[in-house]
Amino acid sequence: MSAVLPVGASVRVRVPASSANLGPGFDSVGCALGLWDECTATVVAEPGLVVTVEGEGAGAVPLDDSHLVVRAMRAAWADLGVPTPSGLRLACRNAVPHGRGMGSSATAIVTGIVAAQALADIGAGRTDGEVDLAFTNDLAARLEGHPDNASASIFGGVTLSWTGGDGRTSTVRLPVHPGIAPVVLAPQTQLSTARARSVLPQQVRLADAAANSARAALLTHAVTSAPAYLLEATRDWLHQEARRPSYPASMALVDRLRTGGHAAAISGAGPSVIVLATAATVEVVRSHAPAGWRALAPGIPPGGAQVEVLAGG
Amino acid sequence: MSAVLPVGASVRVRVPASSANLGPGFDSVGCALGLWDECTATVVAEPGLVVTVEGEGAGAVPLDDSHLVVRAMRAAWADLGVPTPSGLRLACRNAVPHGRGMGSSATAIVTGIVAAQALADIGAGRTDGEVDLAFTNDLAARLEGHPDNASASIFGGVTLSWTGGDGRTSTVRLPVHPGIAPVVLAPQTQLSTARARSVLPQQVRLADAAANSARAALLTHAVTSAPAYLLEATRDWLHQEARRPSYPASMALVDRLRTGGHAAAISGAGPSVIVLATAATVEVVRSHAPAGWRALAPGIPPGGAQVEVLAGG
Repeated sequence: MSAVLPVGASVRVRVPASSANLGPGFDSVGCALGLWDECTATVVAEPGLVVTVEGEGAGAVPLDDSHLVVRAMRAAWADLGVPTPSGLRLACRNAVPHGRGMGSSATAIVTGIVAAQALADIGAGRTDGEVDLAFTNDLAARLEGHPDNASASIFGGVTLSWTGGDGRTSTVRLPVHPGIAPVVLAPQTQLSTARARSVLPQQVRLADAAANSARAALLTHAVTSAPAYLLEATRDWLHQEARRPSYPASMALVDRLRTGGHAAAISGAGPSVIVLATAATVEVVRSHAPAGWRALAPGIPPGGAQVEVLAGG
Repeated sequence: MSAVLPVGASVRVRVPASSANLGPGFDSVGCALGLWDECTATVVAEPGLVVTVEGEGAGAVPLDDSHLVVRAMRAAWADLGVPTPSGLRLACRNAVPHGRGMGSSATAIVTGIVAAQALADIGAGRTDGEVDLAFTNDLAARLEGHPDNASASIFGGVTLSWTGGDGRTSTVRLPVHPGIAPVVLAPQTQLSTARARSVLPQQVRLADAAANSARAALLTHAVTSAPAYLLEATRDWLHQEARRPSYPASMALVDRLRTGGHAAAISGAGPSVIVLATAATVEVVRSHAPAGWRALAPGIPPGGAQVEVLAGG
């Protein structure tokens, strides 16, 4: 593909938040959350980049070439062999909180890759808004460094991702039991994923790796067919305890909720807590939110990233 | 329970073989195999123990108190508070090969626990042949040291087991996709599980533990719903490579089969190889058996241990 992007081409992309890991699914399991970032990308005649941001991240994220959506767009165009347009406008309305373990960086990366493809498709004469999800998934995992959040944002539902022998990311979307209702308890404080990763050990005990693998296998069963096992299925041995000093209040909350029988885990790299609740337990779980924390019940959207062609240029 | 076992009470127990691990499900996943050990246990007046063994293990296993079925019976009676009878006859017809990674020791342990309970039930006036499967499962895991084989022998199908915070074993039986047809390729050589375990490392890389957990989660999905993923779902990072020097021919066979697209793994602690084939691939997989190896297609029995009351004493 080498089509020049036509001036006037414009697409709107919506991408949901996500919660990674769900306990034992470290770097592999993701759950889409019904909080959506929306971004309109338009090729314009006037050279240069103009980014506007409303909502989450407004006033905090950079508005230049280092904006994550822009970086992902450029990476996608580079992979697709499409020249970057000289003039680009980006208008973002963000609902996904930043630095809370709700996958905001993956949401931004997926937004950029999807928008870049949709604009490239317009340049190639296609305006159906269909993009290559496997390409999106693999590139997003490479840019993010792990596939769990991005896959959920791309496909929706609960996803399971792995890296094949060829280094490429594969993903299946698991059919989610309709009785599961996630609750996210989000503190005011932020935690960077990079900092959270730096405290993880390089080695774990074989027995812990085996125990974690068993619970990961159980997680698939519990999420798809048997929510009664969610408490046992969300126990982790790989990441949460090592990071306890990074988010002590979150771990204390996880401990309290699990002692009460609720399937609680750290959401992604934290510090938010996710609980795989049911309709019957959502309100009691929300009532556990400490003072100053938000308690969200965003639902699990069955589909992920959406794209709409606003103008063909 | 403290009923004395009545002279003449007799039960026949049938227990299937099993294949543990299936790749990433180390010490947790088991698959029942349609090869059955059968054992008749009878309380007799004449004091002493008489054990007879036909089939696999005949002439090799001990025929005294150290016979594994007898040891499991005594352990069960001790837990149940039932006095061991002074006279006991045990007639075993074994179809499960020993030392091949087909769960023969778990089969024997389950046989003993089930027989002991059924005889104790007769002593307590119950002759319905119903035994406590949770008790059987937990005691068998304790005697065996790991629950994977025993759980499959008890419940049939493909099982997933884990140890709870209370130290007790829990198990779920996964609904197996009807298209899956296991093939076991068994060499003439034996390998003891104890020796196989001694070469495992105490520590593994966090990245490997995460990769293994992802495949374990995928294994549940592939076994229950999506056999197309079985090849990727049976890849392991925890035990097979470390044991390669213990069973080089088996690993070479696993490598060949996997390169050919077949979902091959070491069966339990080896040296047999199990392949999760389909009706369409069973014969080609069997044709990979090296000279001198047996190629079995035993099927996956949907149920496990069976007990029949022959005489109430």
